[in-house]
Amino acid sequence: MASEKCFAKGSSAPGLVAKGQIRLYSMRFCPFAHRTRLVLHAKGIKHDTVNINLKDKPEWFLKKNPLGLVPTLETSSGQVIYESPITCDYLDEVYTDKKLLPADPFQKAQQKMMLENFSKITPYFYKIPLGKKNGEDISVLEAELKEKFVKLNEDLVNKKSKFFGGNAITMIDYMMWPWFERLEIFELKHCLDGTPELKKWTEHMSEDQTVKATMFPTETYKAFYKTYADGKPNYDYGL
Amino acid sequence: MASEKCFAKGSSAPGLVAKGQIRLYSMRFCPFAHRTRLVLHAKGIKHDTVNINLKDKPEWFLKKNPLGLVPTLETSSGQVIYESPITCDYLDEVYTDKKLLPADPFQKAQQKMMLENFSKITPYFYKIPLGKKNGEDISVLEAELKEKFVKLNEDLVNKKSKFFGGNAITMIDYMMWPWFERLEIFELKHCLDGTPELKKWTEHMSEDQTVKATMFPTETYKAFYKTYADGKPNYDYGL
Repeated sequence: MASEKCFAKGSSAPGLVAKGQIRLYSMRFCPFAHRTRLVLHAKGIKHDTVNINLKDKPEWFLKKNPLGLVPTLETSSGQVIYESPITCDYLDEVYTDKKLLPADPFQKAQQKMMLENFSKITPYFYKIPLGKKNGEDISVLEAELKEKFVKLNEDLVNKKSKFFGGNAITMIDYMMWPWFERLEIFELKHCLDGTPELKKWTEHMSEDQTVKATMFPTETYKAFYKTYADGKPNYDYGL
Repeated sequence: MASEKCFAKGSSAPGLVAKGQIRLYSMRFCPFAHRTRLVLHAKGIKHDTVNINLKDKPEWFLKKNPLGLVPTLETSSGQVIYESPITCDYLDEVYTDKKLLPADPFQKAQQKMMLENFSKITPYFYKIPLGKKNGEDISVLEAELKEKFVKLNEDLVNKKSKFFGGNAITMIDYMMWPWFERLEIFELKHCLDGTPELKKWTEHMSEDQTVKATMFPTETYKAFYKTYADGKPNYDYGL
């Protein structure tokens, strides 16, 4: 699935999406596209993956999605869906096996509120490494991130559950996971030291078959993020 | 519905939410809360409204929603829901009469993508009036806003429909409407001059019973926004 070299500007468009399949436009190391990869795998949805060179986007891709974002889904009838939570909700609605979102409207609303809250956490995973690279003092940012982890930890403590939606993995866990999988690469693993329940959650998540199947080895991530930090991302690293 | 004076810090909490009803915590002139007011009215949902002084929030309100945001919904069993699109989706799921979101997953995803796009437009309605007040050159911002209106206009032209989800009003129309209702107050009505289909949409929207029922007279908005711009918002203006 994640074994194809990326398409860049000047490339020919890939063939049509096969009937009965869906296509994911992705970038192998993108945490947002990772969300959709997790959902596709967890639900066992037949799909192909086309990786995009995000620094040098193919013209044909910009025609499909003028924003040029990954993840983007394309159906065999040419319908195009983007924005990671929208792609994941779409997949969960269309493919009714192994539902990841709760059926109860309030529980669903709770997951959406958690996701909205989490969208204020993701910027730290860029700001802190960037600040460090630029030799800035990142102690305030790190303290803020830890404070946010404390809230997530409290949530798990209050719920007395292994995962954020109960004792089984649901949508919200997969929505948050990609950034936790990269904590070591961002040199932020120590931020979990004061939040034991959240740390346990990362351990439970690491045991999930879908998480395992869509994960890259730490060394691969490190090598990719080095090329990314140097301004020359090697999207095909390791292929 | 919108006739109650706001609750401020030091106020006693209102009574429990009546069984079979839902409560909206609102601010009479807030465009985000306006979204939820539109949905409550359009679907004919029995509710009461508690207005909040957003400059001086009641302690009891911050206990219900630590973010202190409006709109917030509260059910008679004490469930709390916030963030305007989440409150509206929740209402549309729980109250199944007069569905506002399409049942088709792709059409629903399209509405979510439009909403995501619109979330990049709303900041202009604050930035432009603020820039003007501060004597800044706002011509670039206005040109950008007009460009975004051109895209919305194109969408209506391509769809050949009166509204953004077809020939009847659906969720996306109500999600975008509050800012268009305030165009005159923001002194941005001329930005519609180059986009006739979008202008027609605003006219069709103005004829909707729900839009009419939740609308304030322009003079009231103007008076409120003057107090707001002066840093002393009179949330009870006109009561």
